[in-house]
Amino acid sequence: MKALAFDVFGTVVDWRAGIIGELEAFGRSQGLQRDWPAFADGWRAGYAPAMDRVRRGELPWTRIDDLHRAILVELLAAADIRASDADVDHLNRAWHRLDPWPDSVAGLLRLKQRYLITTLSNGNVSLLTNMAKHAGLPWDCVISAELFRHYKPDPEAYLGCAELLDVAPGELTLVAAHPSDLHAARAAGLGTAYVARPLEYGPDGVAHVVKPDEFDIIATDFVDLADQLGA
Amino acid sequence: MKALAFDVFGTVVDWRAGIIGELEAFGRSQGLQRDWPAFADGWRAGYAPAMDRVRRGELPWTRIDDLHRAILVELLAAADIRASDADVDHLNRAWHRLDPWPDSVAGLLRLKQRYLITTLSNGNVSLLTNMAKHAGLPWDCVISAELFRHYKPDPEAYLGCAELLDVAPGELTLVAAHPSDLHAARAAGLGTAYVARPLEYGPDGVAHVVKPDEFDIIATDFVDLADQLGA
Repeated sequence: MKALAFDVFGTVVDWRAGIIGELEAFGRSQGLQRDWPAFADGWRAGYAPAMDRVRRGELPWTRIDDLHRAILVELLAAADIRASDADVDHLNRAWHRLDPWPDSVAGLLRLKQRYLITTLSNGNVSLLTNMAKHAGLPWDCVISAELFRHYKPDPEAYLGCAELLDVAPGELTLVAAHPSDLHAARAAGLGTAYVARPLEYGPDGVAHVVKPDEFDIIATDFVDLADQLGA
Repeated sequence: MKALAFDVFGTVVDWRAGIIGELEAFGRSQGLQRDWPAFADGWRAGYAPAMDRVRRGELPWTRIDDLHRAILVELLAAADIRASDADVDHLNRAWHRLDPWPDSVAGLLRLKQRYLITTLSNGNVSLLTNMAKHAGLPWDCVISAELFRHYKPDPEAYLGCAELLDVAPGELTLVAAHPSDLHAARAAGLGTAYVARPLEYGPDGVAHVVKPDEFDIIATDFVDLADQLGA
């Protein structure tokens, strides 16, 4: 193994707490009260179907920033909230300002000593780059589905990442908190490292259940991953 | 201005000293004596014509690593040097192991506090990423002509960089030691910052001469650039 590619939303950063916090701040600034956790979950729930429309060719290539904004505009209308374009733009960029899980930066700094570490996210390059600056994520490079115009789990995203890094697929391991992402990476020939993020969907969320031999590595967090990899 | 994109070979790293050093080590290991500075200059001189063949469509898209290797193989044959494929591969990756100019890292760390900093190089992504790890270059992201399949000075490279960063061309400034690169960036709508690297072609090299108002910024090195930009 030469390189580690990281899924980002949910695996590296806690999107739910971050989005709820930004929605609450938006609500305060507008004098609005809503069920912001439910709003956040609805925003995230709109993301996979929107990407699937791009993957099936029903929409031309569209960045996540623009998919997120379209979903947000619909949710605001459904919640009877009027907001200026500038406010919508600011709120939409909440995805650029998410905070990492407590172990993310410490684990990445250790893993970076021994491996090349990159993003491999469906988030667009500018989103991932702005997030890395905000959150202090020490990536060696920023690789996005945007570069291949193929969203994960399309194989082009996993294979394109290996090609850009000039490594064989088997020399690249995907790190993710989502079994579906890892299964697609394995089908493309990559190694797989599952990291449990039981709080991704909040304190009442349902954690993924994985079998002991389902992936090459199963870790409790990025520090445990670094321990297991001797980094 | 929101972001700075850096040319790399000659602007950030001292390719000539690095390549001469690796050629000398190769010569010692093989028991060969040659004019290694001339060999290094010949290697570099083959680069622009090779890229131009790609730019004109005479060659399909080819990464710099592969262009470099083809030039190297020709130069070795012309110098009557036989080397194993593994030795040629190792030598070719000397371009991944170049050292920065003495001010590069200190200047980049300051500029990164205030701006998004990225590469915008004709070097491929893996080359730039490996170089950044070797040299401690603190890029926010790694953008290469490879992502656009258009080598600089094609406008697609400059405009593609701005698009990936989601900034207007005028919000992006190219930093380079080469007037031709900067003139092409300006034609695409980017800001321009010239940094003098009088030793790029060695102690006997001819430095570029630029007019006082030829570019938006003229700096003596990256620390001076940070000073001028208040970073």
